[in-house]
Amino acid sequence: MITSKSNAWFKRVRDAIREHTDEIVIEGPKAVADAIAAGWKPIAVISVGAGFSRPAEVGPHTHITFSPALLKAVTDTRTSQGVIGLFERPRWKPDQIFSKRDTVVIALDSVQDPGNVGTIVRLAAAFDAAGVILLPGCADAYGPKAIRASAGAILNVPVVEMDTDALLARGLPVYSADSKGSTAAPPARSAVLAFGSEGRGISAQLRKAARPIAIETSGRVESLNVAAAAAILLWRSFVQRL
Amino acid sequence: MITSKSNAWFKRVRDAIREHTDEIVIEGPKAVADAIAAGWKPIAVISVGAGFSRPAEVGPHTHITFSPALLKAVTDTRTSQGVIGLFERPRWKPDQIFSKRDTVVIALDSVQDPGNVGTIVRLAAAFDAAGVILLPGCADAYGPKAIRASAGAILNVPVVEMDTDALLARGLPVYSADSKGSTAAPPARSAVLAFGSEGRGISAQLRKAARPIAIETSGRVESLNVAAAAAILLWRSFVQRL
Repeated sequence: MITSKSNAWFKRVRDAIREHTDEIVIEGPKAVADAIAAGWKPIAVISVGAGFSRPAEVGPHTHITFSPALLKAVTDTRTSQGVIGLFERPRWKPDQIFSKRDTVVIALDSVQDPGNVGTIVRLAAAFDAAGVILLPGCADAYGPKAIRASAGAILNVPVVEMDTDALLARGLPVYSADSKGSTAAPPARSAVLAFGSEGRGISAQLRKAARPIAIETSGRVESLNVAAAAAILLWRSFVQRL
Repeated sequence: MITSKSNAWFKRVRDAIREHTDEIVIEGPKAVADAIAAGWKPIAVISVGAGFSRPAEVGPHTHITFSPALLKAVTDTRTSQGVIGLFERPRWKPDQIFSKRDTVVIALDSVQDPGNVGTIVRLAAAFDAAGVILLPGCADAYGPKAIRASAGAILNVPVVEMDTDALLARGLPVYSADSKGSTAAPPARSAVLAFGSEGRGISAQLRKAARPIAIETSGRVESLNVAAAAAILLWRSFVQRL
């Protein structure tokens, strides 16, 4: 059982949780088992020592035991329930998103809140979007809060970081959620649906290329939460494909 | 300038943030000014001392100065920006919600996450619902996280705690978001739209009385985030009233 914060495994897990650059952490026995079932290969499964036995579904992977205090130092214990998995960060290719032409691509621009990014990854799965493009200024989809908010969807939704030039070079028409737009339904397919930060919207560069789509509201709020706006427009796009 | 955690004002603010039983705290100069503009009367406006001057829009109310360390001990400094307001907890009457018959009433059942409760309060304003009923097991709409997620909507959306018997005694038809329901549009008015916890849905008692309404999804997720489901159904209800 590892008890020291200077242990190399502990540091590696801590870095994966804080920085998620090359390795990421999935929290909770069910989420770890789901990741393995989805074909993700764990670098290590870490569980808490002292009477906590490894759940059977985690399988025979490299298994490390942390002291309860050590696991608690890096993860929310209610979420981890004593088990976390260390995985390589998935690397999706843009073509894995853009090759799906019978649906829409989601682009997020400066969506800084990881809970919103994760919730929109979950919506991408719920409404069968091709994937999620993270333009500059977004929270990382592979940080712990975003992974949690995705409720498992991060396992099979392609997420790619890209700059606006590269997105526009793909040549798909871009529609952006914008209270100044028309309230027509968003397209069903072969299009990008872009969502910006709640304060400033999408970048000037993207706005120049995008057709604005508004969501009818009472006018009693300045804006909708970005994930709520995404829910409504993605659902409207999805039902046209049924 | 108050610097001690044993000061009575400090304790009162701390209790309002933690327990929000009779008094609540609004964070940030703009939110405090908005609350005052909406007719809320501050018990006190607290700002951080040492070179931080009170913003003009806060007005001539009882004004208290905390040391930076003291304010930081109770509130997220990025949200408060050095200014918080202590207010009486609003007390709405059920009739202030149920008397509005040209729209729908939102009921939340065991929605434990304060961010979801606050986001749904914001949706209630965006889509002109009559108000929000919190059935047992919900997070408090007047805690700091829920207030923040409401993005100001908490100031004018009536929120009432009620048990299921009292809700059903109002005699309005109840529709609940339920993946086993029909995908018909929710009603435009004179109805309750109920949302349960993502894991367990609404209570058995409420389910017995409710007509289930489903949201079309790809089936790739077990459920939608409760605020995302609310966004879609409340928007569908709202556009029928335009």
